[in-house]
Amino acid sequence: MQNFTYYTPTKVVFGRNTEAQTGALIKEQGGKKVLLHYGGGSVVRSGLLDRVKESLREQEIDWVELGGVVPNPRLSLVYQGIAMAKEEQVDFILAVGGGSVIDSAKAIGYGAAGEGDVWDFYARKRKPLSCLPLGVVLTIAASGSEMSNSSVITNEDGWIKRGYRDDLCRPRFAVMNPELTMTLPPHQTACGCTDILMHTMERYFTSAETMEITDSIAEALMRTVIANARILLEDPRNYEARAEMMWAGSLSHNDLTGCGGDGGDFACHGLEHELGGLYDVAHGAGLAAVWGSWARYVYRDCLHRFYRFAIRVMGISDTGSREETALKGIEAVEEFFRSLRMPTSLEELGIHPGAEELELMAKKCAASAGGRKGSAKVLYEEDMLAIYEMARQRSRL
Amino acid sequence: MQNFTYYTPTKVVFGRNTEAQTGALIKEQGGKKVLLHYGGGSVVRSGLLDRVKESLREQEIDWVELGGVVPNPRLSLVYQGIAMAKEEQVDFILAVGGGSVIDSAKAIGYGAAGEGDVWDFYARKRKPLSCLPLGVVLTIAASGSEMSNSSVITNEDGWIKRGYRDDLCRPRFAVMNPELTMTLPPHQTACGCTDILMHTMERYFTSAETMEITDSIAEALMRTVIANARILLEDPRNYEARAEMMWAGSLSHNDLTGCGGDGGDFACHGLEHELGGLYDVAHGAGLAAVWGSWARYVYRDCLHRFYRFAIRVMGISDTGSREETALKGIEAVEEFFRSLRMPTSLEELGIHPGAEELELMAKKCAASAGGRKGSAKVLYEEDMLAIYEMARQRSRL
Repeated sequence: MQNFTYYTPTKVVFGRNTEAQTGALIKEQGGKKVLLHYGGGSVVRSGLLDRVKESLREQEIDWVELGGVVPNPRLSLVYQGIAMAKEEQVDFILAVGGGSVIDSAKAIGYGAAGEGDVWDFYARKRKPLSCLPLGVVLTIAASGSEMSNSSVITNEDGWIKRGYRDDLCRPRFAVMNPELTMTLPPHQTACGCTDILMHTMERYFTSAETMEITDSIAEALMRTVIANARILLEDPRNYEARAEMMWAGSLSHNDLTGCGGDGGDFACHGLEHELGGLYDVAHGAGLAAVWGSWARYVYRDCLHRFYRFAIRVMGISDTGSREETALKGIEAVEEFFRSLRMPTSLEELGIHPGAEELELMAKKCAASAGGRKGSAKVLYEEDMLAIYEMARQRSRL
Repeated sequence: MQNFTYYTPTKVVFGRNTEAQTGALIKEQGGKKVLLHYGGGSVVRSGLLDRVKESLREQEIDWVELGGVVPNPRLSLVYQGIAMAKEEQVDFILAVGGGSVIDSAKAIGYGAAGEGDVWDFYARKRKPLSCLPLGVVLTIAASGSEMSNSSVITNEDGWIKRGYRDDLCRPRFAVMNPELTMTLPPHQTACGCTDILMHTMERYFTSAETMEITDSIAEALMRTVIANARILLEDPRNYEARAEMMWAGSLSHNDLTGCGGDGGDFACHGLEHELGGLYDVAHGAGLAAVWGSWARYVYRDCLHRFYRFAIRVMGISDTGSREETALKGIEAVEEFFRSLRMPTSLEELGIHPGAEELELMAKKCAASAGGRKGSAKVLYEEDMLAIYEMARQRSRL
């Protein structure tokens, strides 16, 4: 095992009607003027935004609003938010939404608390010294951004999607009411489940020595996600299943499932980021579309983990051959994705990149990772290209 | 499931040589003058205290010292610490030790940050408004106090042992180097393992509806503790096993294993507190001595949990009878305690209370809980007395 730092300062307030506590939570943090940040119309239509505003009014907290965050949140809106935050002298950012809104809020937080171009942080040119404090009212179980130190922003200039991790941006609080996720369309629920599962898988499939407690917690979490995703397919308004998924989403990406490991693999996230940047696909769907090809490309180099995963998470019986058992585990994950109507190829994802696009994505993916990425197997540009090529069509059944 | 708040702001810095970071971590928290709090001579003899002081010197942090904390930490030393902290105007408390030292530091933190008698908080007369910030260099895996909001203090006036929980006292950081626990004597290691297991069991055995993700994480944690306690029996210098135990200790009591539950049972802790107050026994040993009797007294009222526990944690095969299977699980825990040379009766604990002492303890236990305690089964004074009586002798085999 490796030395590690575990730091999750976010106060989670979980359960029914918890959004009514938002104003009090901001007050507890000393917030007096808030940038209220959100996405499209659903938080307006559902009445959630009104309820949140009511709780701000109760605590005599002032606010300005910036909506319009889209999936794969854009740098241009981040710039707008920074300008607004500075002009209005806000001292707290409240993200009401899912991962895109939270990530956008984090980027605004970095930018509003300092000078210069916020993209510098995502481009690895310099590090932020501070971040405006932020809180979250979560409406989608997926990204884990509500407890994580990570944010991902897309720069429209070149459609470059880049992540940046820094403890400065960890939300001060996260209000999590599973009821708010009950009306999500099935596709979005499925994308969320995939993303959650992937956040743990990325940490789980590693070549490093790990900790048993971390591995077994990760396995418990993955089993829970798979079981409850199946329940939500049939019964999307099941509160308990929504709650399991929502809490799994946070635990999956707050580093609990990586303690003692080497930081994880995260090659699939890298591969997906290029898809997301170039084609604006849903993050979870993009992950599902490349995972099977990635797994088949790397599993022999990390056989003990894929074998253990097959047995403990996917419930595969040991066939006597570790390799065969591991492969059955991979097939079971793909079968699970299909049951959620998630794509398991780029074709099913609805994109048809030519050779040139694949090469471009592999090049960008390698470049953004400093030339190599992965732990289950270290991947270089040619490996990334090979995986993209495998992922083009579902030819592996 | 129930609504819950999950709040673990403690920055955990885990692994080899991490104590060298102590000074830097205090500086990060703004600490300039520290009360260095510890127990007996082992941290001196091992050289740990010198290494910690060196890291303070490196950061030009001043300190005053107060050693002498004993197991079941005493109120009189807490008073001394408060007086010293105020006189010396310390702005940070550093606990170097195990749960007793941390709990003592927390009590000093409450007292030093306010006015009046600190015992008022433990006696439920009033609530603290603040607490001096504190950090931990952990030397014993057991109490989980390094991430918890709880502290337990013994008032020598009446030998009353009382706990108090408040987020104000959660440590700002916890330095956890498993190497520091390698030289613990076997009995202390076993007491620690028992305490850790119990912190999760207290939350697990509940009559409330819970969350699957919480239950399955709890089961993973309990299996890890049992497996690694067995390794440490044979190989006390096994770094990996020490690390598993140390991290399990924190996760067991930072509320992760209670999310969505009703706060847990904690009757065994209540029963043990009276033993600890009156006879000054080791906390883990006291817990082991009453657990089996408690479990046999309550399991029929919480059969589904005891049944699931038997199968998933203790690896018992279903006998076809839920009750019989549950009982086999209880027996397996007692067998595990015995393998660690932990007592499973008051007699084995080395105490021989008469009827009057048992009645006194049951009365105090009920009184301190407001008349009733427990979730697996709600216990009143007569139930507590019955359990103490069952626990007197190991008559159940």
